[in-house]
Amino acid sequence: MSIVLHSSQSEAAAIGKFAYYTRNYPTVLSGCGVYDGSEVHEASAVLVHLSRKNARVSMFAPNINQMHTIDHIKGEPTEPNRNVLVESARIARGQIEDLSKLKAKDFDAIIFPGGFGAAKNLSTFAVDGTSMSVNADVERVLKDFHGARKPIGLICIAPVLGAKLFPGCEVTVGSDVEEGDKWPNVGAAKAIQAMKAKHVKKDVTECHVDAMNKIVTTPAFMCNTAIHKIFDGIGVLVNTVLKLSQS
Amino acid sequence: MSIVLHSSQSEAAAIGKFAYYTRNYPTVLSGCGVYDGSEVHEASAVLVHLSRKNARVSMFAPNINQMHTIDHIKGEPTEPNRNVLVESARIARGQIEDLSKLKAKDFDAIIFPGGFGAAKNLSTFAVDGTSMSVNADVERVLKDFHGARKPIGLICIAPVLGAKLFPGCEVTVGSDVEEGDKWPNVGAAKAIQAMKAKHVKKDVTECHVDAMNKIVTTPAFMCNTAIHKIFDGIGVLVNTVLKLSQS
Repeated sequence: MSIVLHSSQSEAAAIGKFAYYTRNYPTVLSGCGVYDGSEVHEASAVLVHLSRKNARVSMFAPNINQMHTIDHIKGEPTEPNRNVLVESARIARGQIEDLSKLKAKDFDAIIFPGGFGAAKNLSTFAVDGTSMSVNADVERVLKDFHGARKPIGLICIAPVLGAKLFPGCEVTVGSDVEEGDKWPNVGAAKAIQAMKAKHVKKDVTECHVDAMNKIVTTPAFMCNTAIHKIFDGIGVLVNTVLKLSQS
Repeated sequence: MSIVLHSSQSEAAAIGKFAYYTRNYPTVLSGCGVYDGSEVHEASAVLVHLSRKNARVSMFAPNINQMHTIDHIKGEPTEPNRNVLVESARIARGQIEDLSKLKAKDFDAIIFPGGFGAAKNLSTFAVDGTSMSVNADVERVLKDFHGARKPIGLICIAPVLGAKLFPGCEVTVGSDVEEGDKWPNVGAAKAIQAMKAKHVKKDVTECHVDAMNKIVTTPAFMCNTAIHKIFDGIGVLVNTVLKLSQS
């Protein structure tokens, strides 16, 4: 069963506009909050841009414990720990399913917002760096979409998932040079290179398209900038994923 | 000390564009998640639209326990309870202050996103209806902005705060007629009327301006519609608040 976050599909059918896009696009969350889950503004931007093109959205997250729970004021771990699926439901307004139920055959493309949850809950990149492992369902889902030549959108730090699973693929997390305080996380770009993927420099309002692998990436909050630029960059990624899914 | 969520003020100063708006606008949160805190997409939309106009954003929330914590999958209370300020920091990426420190004299206008947190943590509307009480700091802050003739933006269910505190004011929460499943929460409009405020019907992409009270309201998720329309309606509210703050 796919979960529809809004009513635009029926509206699209009624007015006959953008009907091209009324297929179903899953978004995979990793909790709720930048330091231990999905970055909420990135996740929200994905939904707004998909909605504007009348794409249906289904939300999924793994039904596992978080690596830990971070007090977002102190920036330190706190107790008790929380469940990734249950916390992700805060972003999804309750309309979310266990990632184990996600099958690539039911969908046209897939998008992963960033936030540390992608590096702590969907993979172990935050702890293990280039020796990272990927959650089994995340790996299954990504390999299934990749094998079916369906586009994969990876935002912020989530491109490390692509770099690990698809050797030689091209992704961006922005820049591998700091440029003052604009790119505070250049270690991610260097790790991507060390994992034998190709890192491509892109600005925050751009995305990179690896046409061969159908992987689309954008830096988002890897860049220290105004939030509307991050919103716009995610819009470029979403629209590119939508177009690729029809080609 | 005011907290800046992004670097656009210095950019605005550098390029001399929109400098008119490079003043500081506080946004008051009530947790993180529609059923027990701030609606995350409404809060995010506020930040994106303020950012696009180069307005600085400061985030505040009361340092109190939530009324309760809701499991957003089950839609039921769960343990343990959480703190409003600490959970709000998930939306604010850690850059948030105790609402008790917010002084109207330091700012040009104020905006409250919705979500049940506005009716459970900032007030008791969800439990007490028209007999609701308002959190002491929320009441102090709103009365100070109102008294100083500085604009107040209230989104979704947050207009009940204005209806309670400013008798006779005009607000919208959308419609007091259901129109199929478009307006599932018409009870809020009826409660606003019962509190002797004037409810004005508006669509989700509109806002209502009470010019005398400088109160601006928009329905947002009071409407059952596509998320990009909610995003756009909040944009109309934000831009109206910005303009009013300069008049």
